[in-house]
Amino acid sequence: MLSYTLGVDYGTNSVRALVVNCETGEELASAVVDYPSGHQGVLLDSADANLARQNPADYLYGLEESITRALAEALKHEGFTAEGIVGIGVDTTGSSPMPVDAHNVPLGVHPQWKDNLNAQCWLWKDHTSYAEAARITELSAEHRPQYIAKCGNTYSSEWWWSKIWHCLNVAPEVFDAAHSWVELADYVPSVLAGVKDPKGVVRGICCAGHKALYSDEWGGLPDKEFLALLDPKLAELRDRLYEKAVDASNVAGKLCPEWAEKLGLPVGIPIAVGEMDVHYGAIGCGVDEGTLVKVIGTSTCDCGVVSMKKEVADIPGICGIVPGAILPGYYGIEAGQSAVGDLFKWWVEGVCQDDAAHHAKLTVDAEKLKPGQSGLLALDWNNGNRTILVDQRLTGVILGQTLHTTQAEIYRALIEATAFGARMILERIAEYGVPVERIVCAGGIAEKNVMLMQIYADVTGRELCVSGSSQTCALGAAVGAAVVAGKYPDFKSAQDAMTSLKDVVYKPNPVAQKVYDELFALYGKVHDAFGGVNAQADLGGVMKELLRIKDSAR
Amino acid sequence: MLSYTLGVDYGTNSVRALVVNCETGEELASAVVDYPSGHQGVLLDSADANLARQNPADYLYGLEESITRALAEALKHEGFTAEGIVGIGVDTTGSSPMPVDAHNVPLGVHPQWKDNLNAQCWLWKDHTSYAEAARITELSAEHRPQYIAKCGNTYSSEWWWSKIWHCLNVAPEVFDAAHSWVELADYVPSVLAGVKDPKGVVRGICCAGHKALYSDEWGGLPDKEFLALLDPKLAELRDRLYEKAVDASNVAGKLCPEWAEKLGLPVGIPIAVGEMDVHYGAIGCGVDEGTLVKVIGTSTCDCGVVSMKKEVADIPGICGIVPGAILPGYYGIEAGQSAVGDLFKWWVEGVCQDDAAHHAKLTVDAEKLKPGQSGLLALDWNNGNRTILVDQRLTGVILGQTLHTTQAEIYRALIEATAFGARMILERIAEYGVPVERIVCAGGIAEKNVMLMQIYADVTGRELCVSGSSQTCALGAAVGAAVVAGKYPDFKSAQDAMTSLKDVVYKPNPVAQKVYDELFALYGKVHDAFGGVNAQADLGGVMKELLRIKDSAR
Repeated sequence: MLSYTLGVDYGTNSVRALVVNCETGEELASAVVDYPSGHQGVLLDSADANLARQNPADYLYGLEESITRALAEALKHEGFTAEGIVGIGVDTTGSSPMPVDAHNVPLGVHPQWKDNLNAQCWLWKDHTSYAEAARITELSAEHRPQYIAKCGNTYSSEWWWSKIWHCLNVAPEVFDAAHSWVELADYVPSVLAGVKDPKGVVRGICCAGHKALYSDEWGGLPDKEFLALLDPKLAELRDRLYEKAVDASNVAGKLCPEWAEKLGLPVGIPIAVGEMDVHYGAIGCGVDEGTLVKVIGTSTCDCGVVSMKKEVADIPGICGIVPGAILPGYYGIEAGQSAVGDLFKWWVEGVCQDDAAHHAKLTVDAEKLKPGQSGLLALDWNNGNRTILVDQRLTGVILGQTLHTTQAEIYRALIEATAFGARMILERIAEYGVPVERIVCAGGIAEKNVMLMQIYADVTGRELCVSGSSQTCALGAAVGAAVVAGKYPDFKSAQDAMTSLKDVVYKPNPVAQKVYDELFALYGKVHDAFGGVNAQADLGGVMKELLRIKDSAR
Repeated sequence: MLSYTLGVDYGTNSVRALVVNCETGEELASAVVDYPSGHQGVLLDSADANLARQNPADYLYGLEESITRALAEALKHEGFTAEGIVGIGVDTTGSSPMPVDAHNVPLGVHPQWKDNLNAQCWLWKDHTSYAEAARITELSAEHRPQYIAKCGNTYSSEWWWSKIWHCLNVAPEVFDAAHSWVELADYVPSVLAGVKDPKGVVRGICCAGHKALYSDEWGGLPDKEFLALLDPKLAELRDRLYEKAVDASNVAGKLCPEWAEKLGLPVGIPIAVGEMDVHYGAIGCGVDEGTLVKVIGTSTCDCGVVSMKKEVADIPGICGIVPGAILPGYYGIEAGQSAVGDLFKWWVEGVCQDDAAHHAKLTVDAEKLKPGQSGLLALDWNNGNRTILVDQRLTGVILGQTLHTTQAEIYRALIEATAFGARMILERIAEYGVPVERIVCAGGIAEKNVMLMQIYADVTGRELCVSGSSQTCALGAAVGAAVVAGKYPDFKSAQDAMTSLKDVVYKPNPVAQKVYDELFALYGKVHDAFGGVNAQADLGGVMKELLRIKDSAR
């Protein structure tokens, strides 16, 4: 009998289940289910643009629906039976923590909390806790510099402790009602494994190390003395969280009878430890030492790995360097850009007030422009700067406009801005000795947007490969499941068998590259001025002042 | 018999003739004629966005048509006869120089030159000669600092010598074919007066002083030694230009029989000396010492006057301080912003790709925003910076965008940007001792855009009055005509009788004012950084570099 694994990928707007042939990596069937709640699956607050939550009930609905539909699709293939499924892997957005009760049930599904936004899952892109993040950065710098040394010396409002602390500050009743908190990436595997106690939830090193200041070096999560500096209640909470987080060579449990029946799958098949989407995505792209994976979607995540047998320097401004976060035995290095596809979508749908089809029209016009021809330069900070400056309280810039500047010119300038941001990350990583011999891109934009990919090649001066799969995150989770199911001795052999590259390679055009080198130098100046790196520019505070004034105008 | 004067106003897209009752200022009739050539009357070059020319034939067509139609309209009023017209005043855009032959005929109307863009009138907003302007600034700073001391120490690409020199550089055949050059403001009166020799064209001090470095102090136009530093041919041209320029107490001539017959007007009535539109506009607004007139249209012009009995300091960054340029006996002080209405039009029509009616829709949304609520800040430099920095090679900036920023928020931010630019000018003038006790606004935007006017009041912290006439430039020209026709002993008495204010006064709201004070401080930082005032910001060259790269991308 042929063997298959399931990869389940929880995105921002939908969940996808993928059935993968363990021997060949063939993607037999998949199904996507949109989250029913909120705006495209996200719970918003019209009074606070920073807020982004999700309904935990959507996760359970999406889990059952997506797997059931994918299996139904797979069953149309001759030779496939559900008994052939040997394991399940799950990846999700992160840091997306949610409060749970003593039985590992999310507060958000309880009738008394279901309408309370603070009792739901705090989605990765929720930025309400920027003040708490800044305070954690300060306190850590003063008392535990080692905690933030691996995450660019800056703790983010997108991360675990900022969010939980903000919940405690703005909704103490929710905080008090929560027995514990779990990352979405740990929660879904725990559901499949039938875990009924938060203490029994297997916690992945991926979220713990990147988002929760977890390290074996200092005995796990931040110590209680430090947490008490934030709030004594956070120190108390530590006892109800976890002692140990593990890498993807571990299982999160075995498929419990209840969910086996719901899904029509064999009881007891292994559930891989959860990782964040792009981490499993990197695995699905065939990441190894020397390969930088770029998952380019609404935002971009950059992932690399370096053998744990080597030393890796602390890289200023990089989101995290975490042992075992992506591949067991390797440091996982994560960087990223907070808005990429989202930035273009903002321009086309938010500003130009056109529909998604308008991207194609603007692309036709933007493709006709030569590098530099528009005279425009933009900063890609509409959703803050995740890597290099690690500052959510930064905002966008467009400059160089004349009275003749067009929609398409600005569209292209925004694409170029994200390319410059990508180059900043690449140069920073390289500067600190992380080898980048190959760049593999994945995600909808990398697959479809030929103009963007060529601009990225021209701006970075690097050849860009594209992942063979359109569903690399789910594929990576399926690879992880194949490993824990014992189909392969290690990730390397599983990746070699199950992942691939497309034939296309984007090569830099030397003429364009030269112009972009000039523009990148200007981007650097504006970046450093508004980012506060060039303190003499006296502009480092401008965006923050604008946000302060904006907040008080409410 | 009642007496009337005609004010003829040459704008960027059309010409307007206004019949005014000399005793009361009543506007009896008017007619507007669009220039038939080019795009909305402007000849463009798709390969060079800096280029803006006009067909001189349009001026002659527009002169006859507008006056004829206005008179026809006026004749419907009982008691009016064409014999009642006692004088004509003309205002035009400027600096709009054009090459003419030895008979004062524009080259552009000659069959052999009519398709040559360089042989047409070089419209005020033509910026092709930025390199020449920069060189004139350098040479003047080194050899004749007094020449540019009165125009902010910076010569502009919008002005006379830059344009003529650029013509010599790019189209020597046109330069050589030109016997002389005349400003449009001097040309139209000379046509009415039947002047057939450029030497006979009466030149107004308004254009000469503001745009051509003319001053009685140094014997008129720049000396030949200096002009030879630019190009020996410009030194030669000086002999074919003029020795003397005069103020508006003078006549440009008397209506010649040919045009009297064409127009059906009495032969020999006086033609006032031409001034630039906003200068006569200031007169039409009742300008006197202590009054700042703001004509707010596609661009904004600020005009003030100070008695020539006093000393006026050189004001850095102000377009010009010229004796007699507006009112005889007073220094005329001119400042301005290169894009105001044009900036909003760019946003609505150029970027949002909507029609003019969309302004109203955006205004509805923008009006709901509190000051500072958008988190945005913009620089109003899409067409360069005319006053303070006097630099056409600056470009626009929008900053503070998030993924939620809307069309209407940016629309309002652009309006606020022009308000901050207006405040920069106001503060600069006041800093150098020019009294501003009253601000009178005119122009289509001042009359119609209530939101903008309130924002301007809130940003500047000043009460804003609005001119009683919708056609202040033409009215001012008609006032000038009434004075030279001997209906009044001086401008003051003519203005008192013929000009008025509307009842509306915009008063600053203290709450909004406080927020705008904060935003203005931030505007100042960004202004100084990109404008090169704060050299340490290292951003002063960014926009120029972008323009250089843009130029080489062609």
